[in-house]
Amino acid sequence: MTKISKKTWKERWFQIIFEADTSKGRTFDIVLMILILISVTALILSTVESFKPYANVFEIIEWCVTILFSVEYILRLIVLKRPSTYIFSFWGIIDFLSTIPKYLSYFLGFESYLTILRTFRLIRIFRILDLGPYIGESHNLSKALKASKEKIFVFLFFVLAISVILGTIMYWVEGAEHGFTNIPKSIYWTIVTLTTVGYGDIAPQTGLGQFIASIVMIMGFGIIAVPTGIVTAEYTKTMSNRTNTKMCRSCGEDDHQDGAKYCHKCGGGMS
Amino acid sequence: MTKISKKTWKERWFQIIFEADTSKGRTFDIVLMILILISVTALILSTVESFKPYANVFEIIEWCVTILFSVEYILRLIVLKRPSTYIFSFWGIIDFLSTIPKYLSYFLGFESYLTILRTFRLIRIFRILDLGPYIGESHNLSKALKASKEKIFVFLFFVLAISVILGTIMYWVEGAEHGFTNIPKSIYWTIVTLTTVGYGDIAPQTGLGQFIASIVMIMGFGIIAVPTGIVTAEYTKTMSNRTNTKMCRSCGEDDHQDGAKYCHKCGGGMS
Amino acid sequence: MTKISKKTWKERWFQIIFEADTSKGRTFDIVLMILILISVTALILSTVESFKPYANVFEIIEWCVTILFSVEYILRLIVLKRPSTYIFSFWGIIDFLSTIPKYLSYFLGFESYLTILRTFRLIRIFRILDLGPYIGESHNLSKALKASKEKIFVFLFFVLAISVILGTIMYWVEGAEHGFTNIPKSIYWTIVTLTTVGYGDIAPQTGLGQFIASIVMIMGFGIIAVPTGIVTAEYTKTMSNRTNTKMCRSCGEDDHQDGAKYCHKCGGGMS
Amino acid sequence: MTKISKKTWKERWFQIIFEADTSKGRTFDIVLMILILISVTALILSTVESFKPYANVFEIIEWCVTILFSVEYILRLIVLKRPSTYIFSFWGIIDFLSTIPKYLSYFLGFESYLTILRTFRLIRIFRILDLGPYIGESHNLSKALKASKEKIFVFLFFVLAISVILGTIMYWVEGAEHGFTNIPKSIYWTIVTLTTVGYGDIAPQTGLGQFIASIVMIMGFGIIAVPTGIVTAEYTKTMSNRTNTKMCRSCGEDDHQDGAKYCHKCGGGMS
Repeated sequence: MTKISKKTWKERWFQIIFEADTSKGRTFDIVLMILILISVTALILSTVESFKPYANVFEIIEWCVTILFSVEYILRLIVLKRPSTYIFSFWGIIDFLSTIPKYLSYFLGFESYLTILRTFRLIRIFRILDLGPYIGESHNLSKALKASKEKIFVFLFFVLAISVILGTIMYWVEGAEHGFTNIPKSIYWTIVTLTTVGYGDIAPQTGLGQFIASIVMIMGFGIIAVPTGIVTAEYTKTMSNRTNTKMCRSCGEDDHQDGAKYCHKCGGGMS
Repeated sequence: MTKISKKTWKERWFQIIFEADTSKGRTFDIVLMILILISVTALILSTVESFKPYANVFEIIEWCVTILFSVEYILRLIVLKRPSTYIFSFWGIIDFLSTIPKYLSYFLGFESYLTILRTFRLIRIFRILDLGPYIGESHNLSKALKASKEKIFVFLFFVLAISVILGTIMYWVEGAEHGFTNIPKSIYWTIVTLTTVGYGDIAPQTGLGQFIASIVMIMGFGIIAVPTGIVTAEYTKTMSNRTNTKMCRSCGEDDHQDGAKYCHKCGGGMS
Repeated sequence: MTKISKKTWKERWFQIIFEADTSKGRTFDIVLMILILISVTALILSTVESFKPYANVFEIIEWCVTILFSVEYILRLIVLKRPSTYIFSFWGIIDFLSTIPKYLSYFLGFESYLTILRTFRLIRIFRILDLGPYIGESHNLSKALKASKEKIFVFLFFVLAISVILGTIMYWVEGAEHGFTNIPKSIYWTIVTLTTVGYGDIAPQTGLGQFIASIVMIMGFGIIAVPTGIVTAEYTKTMSNRTNTKMCRSCGEDDHQDGAKYCHKCGGGMS
Repeated sequence: MTKISKKTWKERWFQIIFEADTSKGRTFDIVLMILILISVTALILSTVESFKPYANVFEIIEWCVTILFSVEYILRLIVLKRPSTYIFSFWGIIDFLSTIPKYLSYFLGFESYLTILRTFRLIRIFRILDLGPYIGESHNLSKALKASKEKIFVFLFFVLAISVILGTIMYWVEGAEHGFTNIPKSIYWTIVTLTTVGYGDIAPQTGLGQFIASIVMIMGFGIIAVPTGIVTAEYTKTMSNRTNTKMCRSCGEDDHQDGAKYCHKCGGGMS
């Protein structure tokens, strides 16, 4: 008897935590989101000078959120049949990392770098929102990214290689006295210029340096066009495929070409 | 008798104020546009040092425009059958807000922040121009924006989440001595960098900080491609849909070239 | 006899000056381009400190080029049947303006601003290059620009209106002590930020100012996507139309839809 | 006998060096890539202050890599039947230039500018990676670039001409006292602004200068859209052409979805 009631208790909590189509599940998600936003806001404000007097308020908030997150994490482990799969999944690791920083900083005695882990809580919001109608969008996005994976890799390597070559050239042309103190710094300058960010903390001052910089900038013009071109083309493609909402009666395939009369998967006729 | 003449008086003014297809209506719109441009130019120039001696000229201009706008606003209320619908509509609120700032500053005794309301007059120009052939364009634009509403929301949240995470990392890497005095300022720096604006008022100075900044910039490269891709794809779609307006009488084909006189499929004449 | 020989002399020069398909015409164009490049290079170098000793060399070059251009301009007038049409055409005005600056500075006694006219010679190169295979490209470009003329106007007005509103807001938020000395300067800052240029000569320093700036930057993200979207969409359209190289046998129309069986202009069958 | 064994020895090394489909060939490529990455990393780090004590370690690494590259270069020459074709090919020149810098600096007695040649080794990685599945991508890219070669040339000339004209205008408007010391520097500023890099090392300070700068920035907005539009349009075109690879045996339709097993037009099976 006790065993059965325990099982239903687990099942009820599984629905609340992992599913969003019940009113309790939705409430759980909203509470989780509010907790995440409160804890991240507290973290951000705690570093501002004028909020320093309220340091212990932020401390209490962080402890409350940490404890609630811990309870939630343990509940997830209890409720699941195979907790190990969850623990080592992407979301399991994110959940764990966004729970522990306060404990770690308590036991280790220092805080600083560990607070970065607290911002990982924001990533959890993606999962909560993903449960809604946004899934389709992110699915499309990840499909477009996967389709152009090789192109992106080649492009990134090209940008890096060109940054190293141009950075080395600028290091010899401008030299340490104009801010190009070493090659890594010159490469940093090249990336700042190619991406059209242009801080101006390091800027060429010799005529030749400014001439080379002009070429780099016009190249950056062309280079910035490449990822935009890739994303637009892939996006247009996935978008145009999505509009073919007709479903095949025989095999259920719902991804058909415009004006298709026969299913491309099973060959069955389509209405 | 008097009632009828009053009614026609109202109707005549309704045509002048709300319609643009009569010569008087057009004149009214042009006068309104000139008034708006004069008042906004006066506002802008009044803050420039070399125009300070003419402060009372700008004061008189502002009072004249305010009184004319007040008369126009009251006319709109009198002329309409249901003034309340207009008052709480988007354009009604804009009309009200762009009329009152001078009165408010007169009664409240201070001006400063209220002048921002005076620039809202520029928004009124959109309505006036919308009456022309531009309606189609803005209709297309708003359609494209509505169609990609969810994508834009997901994208904005993604940018914000990444800015918070990267801002926190940079706060710990660079620290207050290099300008990253608190997390909000670090987040501000991340947005300045991701959008490729790059003021340079805050810039990383440690090697690790510059390395992370380089990654942020190359990410910004890809991120800037996303809204461009979305707008281009949606825009291309609405544009291609718009051309499908004529249908062939003989064969029913509705995908014709601009300015086609004969159907490209059956050769039949088109009206 | 003399009259006829004079006529043929005119005709020969007409071919050399206005046509590029004879070897003499091509030589004329190349000589003209070299003269333009020499004179513009001389102008640019004459302002550099280390080239100041050669000032009279640049002076002589400029006089030579001016005299040669004058001869060419007079030849154009003599050779043409209706010189007045040429004089008041776009290219006629450019030719005139790029010839006179040296004379004007000689008679008026000052130079400075007139040197700007000398750079207009570069525009002449466009005409020379236009005679080659590039005509098609520029034709496409100008078609795309004309097609999106209204959209560009609405977009530019939108950017300006938003710059005025945001500039006014930033003027009150940041104030003169942080570099936002007047509204025109604030508008300048907004344009610098919206276009993602970001000089950093003026940058927000208050928390609220940096928050508003962040919103402006993310808006600039979206705004930069609009012209790219318009150009890409129009360009793709004109490009896809251009690939339909089939020509109608009946009326000669060569701009047909893909897979068209009948001419959209005359209704005649196509092979 | 000796001749034959020598031939097979050559053939074996030809496979290892020039082909990547044997395990030895792959190992050779990976070793080459690691050597390139080590030598470039050593070059970059040798300029950093904190790595200066290890200067002789970097010296030894460079000598080792140079000797290994020399051996590889000589092997390539021995193994090939027509070494002269290789020597004067693009890759032959890159291989030669990336091998000699250390020898040159040893014999000439100075190093500085020659180190730029050492970064050319990174270009070799492109060849090694090109042997993989990336060939298709780069092939597409180079096709798209070739197709829009004329457009890119016209565009670059347009950007340069506009930079010269605007640079000259700004030189007269702002003058030497605001950083626009000569026309080349003004042209540099115009390119920095048009490409939206915006260092801020030179920035307009007069009202008129800031007004012209605003126009330049909004123009840059439109200009940045052109290469993006060209690349996207050409890329979409080559991408859509690439998918039309399978043809239906029954009806001849050659426009099929990716992974289609049955023809969408006639329902016939596809190989």
